[in-house]
Amino acid sequence: MTRIAIVGVAGRMGRTLVNAVEQDAGATLAGGVVEPGSSLAGVDIGELAGVGKKGVAAVDSLEALVDDVEVLIDFTAPQVTLSNLAFCAEHGKRIVIGTTGMSDDEIAQLDRFRDRVPLVFAPNMSVGVNLTLKLLQTAAKALGDEGYDIEVIESHHRHKVDAPSGTALKMGEVVAESLGRNLKEHGVFERVGQCGPRSDKEIGFATVRAGDIVGEHTVMFATEGERIEITHKASSRMTFAKGAVRAARWVADKDSGRYDMQDVLGLGA
Amino acid sequence: MTRIAIVGVAGRMGRTLVNAVEQDAGATLAGGVVEPGSSLAGVDIGELAGVGKKGVAAVDSLEALVDDVEVLIDFTAPQVTLSNLAFCAEHGKRIVIGTTGMSDDEIAQLDRFRDRVPLVFAPNMSVGVNLTLKLLQTAAKALGDEGYDIEVIESHHRHKVDAPSGTALKMGEVVAESLGRNLKEHGVFERVGQCGPRSDKEIGFATVRAGDIVGEHTVMFATEGERIEITHKASSRMTFAKGAVRAARWVADKDSGRYDMQDVLGLGA
Amino acid sequence: MTRIAIVGVAGRMGRTLVNAVEQDAGATLAGGVVEPGSSLAGVDIGELAGVGKKGVAAVDSLEALVDDVEVLIDFTAPQVTLSNLAFCAEHGKRIVIGTTGMSDDEIAQLDRFRDRVPLVFAPNMSVGVNLTLKLLQTAAKALGDEGYDIEVIESHHRHKVDAPSGTALKMGEVVAESLGRNLKEHGVFERVGQCGPRSDKEIGFATVRAGDIVGEHTVMFATEGERIEITHKASSRMTFAKGAVRAARWVADKDSGRYDMQDVLGLGA
Amino acid sequence: MTRIAIVGVAGRMGRTLVNAVEQDAGATLAGGVVEPGSSLAGVDIGELAGVGKKGVAAVDSLEALVDDVEVLIDFTAPQVTLSNLAFCAEHGKRIVIGTTGMSDDEIAQLDRFRDRVPLVFAPNMSVGVNLTLKLLQTAAKALGDEGYDIEVIESHHRHKVDAPSGTALKMGEVVAESLGRNLKEHGVFERVGQCGPRSDKEIGFATVRAGDIVGEHTVMFATEGERIEITHKASSRMTFAKGAVRAARWVADKDSGRYDMQDVLGLGA
Repeated sequence: MTRIAIVGVAGRMGRTLVNAVEQDAGATLAGGVVEPGSSLAGVDIGELAGVGKKGVAAVDSLEALVDDVEVLIDFTAPQVTLSNLAFCAEHGKRIVIGTTGMSDDEIAQLDRFRDRVPLVFAPNMSVGVNLTLKLLQTAAKALGDEGYDIEVIESHHRHKVDAPSGTALKMGEVVAESLGRNLKEHGVFERVGQCGPRSDKEIGFATVRAGDIVGEHTVMFATEGERIEITHKASSRMTFAKGAVRAARWVADKDSGRYDMQDVLGLGA
Repeated sequence: MTRIAIVGVAGRMGRTLVNAVEQDAGATLAGGVVEPGSSLAGVDIGELAGVGKKGVAAVDSLEALVDDVEVLIDFTAPQVTLSNLAFCAEHGKRIVIGTTGMSDDEIAQLDRFRDRVPLVFAPNMSVGVNLTLKLLQTAAKALGDEGYDIEVIESHHRHKVDAPSGTALKMGEVVAESLGRNLKEHGVFERVGQCGPRSDKEIGFATVRAGDIVGEHTVMFATEGERIEITHKASSRMTFAKGAVRAARWVADKDSGRYDMQDVLGLGA
Repeated sequence: MTRIAIVGVAGRMGRTLVNAVEQDAGATLAGGVVEPGSSLAGVDIGELAGVGKKGVAAVDSLEALVDDVEVLIDFTAPQVTLSNLAFCAEHGKRIVIGTTGMSDDEIAQLDRFRDRVPLVFAPNMSVGVNLTLKLLQTAAKALGDEGYDIEVIESHHRHKVDAPSGTALKMGEVVAESLGRNLKEHGVFERVGQCGPRSDKEIGFATVRAGDIVGEHTVMFATEGERIEITHKASSRMTFAKGAVRAARWVADKDSGRYDMQDVLGLGA
Repeated sequence: MTRIAIVGVAGRMGRTLVNAVEQDAGATLAGGVVEPGSSLAGVDIGELAGVGKKGVAAVDSLEALVDDVEVLIDFTAPQVTLSNLAFCAEHGKRIVIGTTGMSDDEIAQLDRFRDRVPLVFAPNMSVGVNLTLKLLQTAAKALGDEGYDIEVIESHHRHKVDAPSGTALKMGEVVAESLGRNLKEHGVFERVGQCGPRSDKEIGFATVRAGDIVGEHTVMFATEGERIEITHKASSRMTFAKGAVRAARWVADKDSGRYDMQDVLGLGA
């Protein structure tokens, strides 16, 4: 049983992580950290997350957990994460990092811990998204330049401000790279009016924005006679939390190094 | 049994119509017309269509069928169709017209036969598409301005040169009109880059072009907690042929007048 | 602005209803009721629901709200609901009832209030599901016995214990009734092995059970050349809460009577 | 350019193969064979297939093509195929075999040619179906026993007499094998009535039969928070013809041996 502490346990992602650890037969809740001075210090983290009393009180300092914990899960902010990495290096702990919004400089600082800390760092922890990227690579290489038209369709909620989604672009890039194409050259992001027939090598993107759709991505490979569609549908942030817990279990017996979700899932080249 | 003749029986649509009549328990093949002087005059129209000998020889003039036929089905060209309407007026026949590309003037000429000929005229004879338009009207009126985001997604084969499809635009117009919106103002045809969140009243369009997709249209109504999707998928031109045969049976006992597929399907307001 | 009180405001559905009222421009939170003696009496119902302070304290008795409220929303238990109906009758209030599990006798008791209380009672308050039933009726009547095969496909989470879902069966019944068929005779619930070709009149059901799917239903009408698919996807219980709030607004100016969601949506025959 | 001859060129599959070779930039039509004594001997095989005159006359004996052809494509009958294999062995030709309905004994006879003939033999030549099987293997291994529920949904036309389809079963077997499960033990083919919640290891199958659906297969992997769906949709027998032509090009420079579509697509373990 991997003993996990959740940093930022009072936030929405923190509470979801408590749920995900609870559901995982190979992991156990060893601690939860709230901000220094928070009035939530001392409350039961199970009750905080709405899964019932777990007998683990929230603490407001990592030091309090030093004897109890093997792996931290951290979806907080760049500077907090770097400070937590220093803690891990000093005390021989491991860490799974889902923090977003890191600058290049902050990522470089993070990277310097690779020789001293076993760490998993991934912008998107979803097992399904990472698997989908691997499937797209396999599909693109097998279909090659054999007349399969490639389209990426993505749907998100009404509040999303950019299009296509970062994940859709990543999917397009993986496909383009597998085919030796440049997405900047072959990506087609709008088709309106008399736009003419499709070219062979283009990779088209279509965007839907509606309601509360958490995130759906389909990549279609279509030719005369058949279509292959690879689809990922996120229904809640549990997809990220469960990926993080899986990463925590995986990293629990690894040597120092910087890993990503492809490593965790055994999908590396 | 409605006795039907197919004008232009040697073309791709003509042959599909032979198939559709064959499959219809309430209709029978009474004749098929080829161009004057065609070498196909005299061949069995069943064999021509690949459905086996039917005992009906193709003729190269409508006059030859005057005693055998109740309803013509005509997917030809504007001037041929107008000439066939004159034949119907003179001989008391009925006609189903799927001819496309008519000018406003030609449509005005066609309209003048409404007092003398029972005629069905529709740019898209597909039962499913026409039903879908009705369903969209019902859905839009029921959902009203209650926070449902509306998106139209359409997919067609790689050769299609315009976007969105005419049918997608028609669907958008039906929805907009049912909600008292103007599609010109509220239609959104591209979303690229930092386009901001969706507005309440916009009707979004997304386009997919790939492979051999005959035509797929989905209209989505999405809000927090649920989505309703109304989808039409065409798999072959049989969808148009079957609609035409259904219209032929329907018009067989109607008075003179110009009808459309909403009338045939009993979906009129 | 319809002034709404939520009975059972501390439960999961109660809190979701607070959210739904908050989002509705035509409704306002006038009160929330918790169980007599609950320690939650006095807390702000906005904070209880996680939407921030609303300045409305939970009460533990309906009487306390008698001057503030126009319509109650009640997703509680049969006996509580009947008691709330008596309150409405006495004080001239209206009520929207989403309580499930009522016996025939309890429904008969409920029905007796129809002359004294404007009440909306529906086993499924989802606007989308109720609209879908109407669309299915329209579609089935238009397509009639014209060779369209009908299939109902439903997907739910792994915990669901029965199949097909009650909503899927209801959809099948609406279609069957519209076509003059008996679902008991024509419903096909399993196809395994050498089951032979499909009959013309059968209505097939297919069931998927997986993951956390809240509820998805598709009814397909398919023939040679085309398919029409009408799909409802629930993503959260907000679909029921929003339907209830819409019903509350609608019933606010109605006379005494027992109404259902078809009435609220203006979809009655 | 691989020089291809099509055996059984007058049949529906034969004519589709002519189309597929025509569309393939790396292959050329070198001949077409009809049954001995057929009145179609001597006609242009392009005209026969409806793609216009190609300057290649149908012959009624393979011997007539011995100097013109590198690879045969054969979707005929078991005994004809075995006889064609003997021709290939004698004359140093290669062959792609899509013939179905072979007995174990006939397959054993076929297998004996593996040392003398470069041959591709596959029950389903569809590139997409074969790729899909590989994707399923990758997905199942990556997701492992991590709480993903697996369901196979397949849709076919109204005339199909068995369920689930052979391809759906094959997909289920590939998934089961990748997970160390036995499909006979864990496959669930019907869920009706009070069937209880889903078990963790079951692989569910759902069947749709409607209209003219050529063949659609989806395998869903779903857990709390996300779904991955891998879908194949066949729209015409071109999917088999194109796979066969791709196999013909691939085998044109291979040594003697018996290959399958996994080899052709480079997807072997």
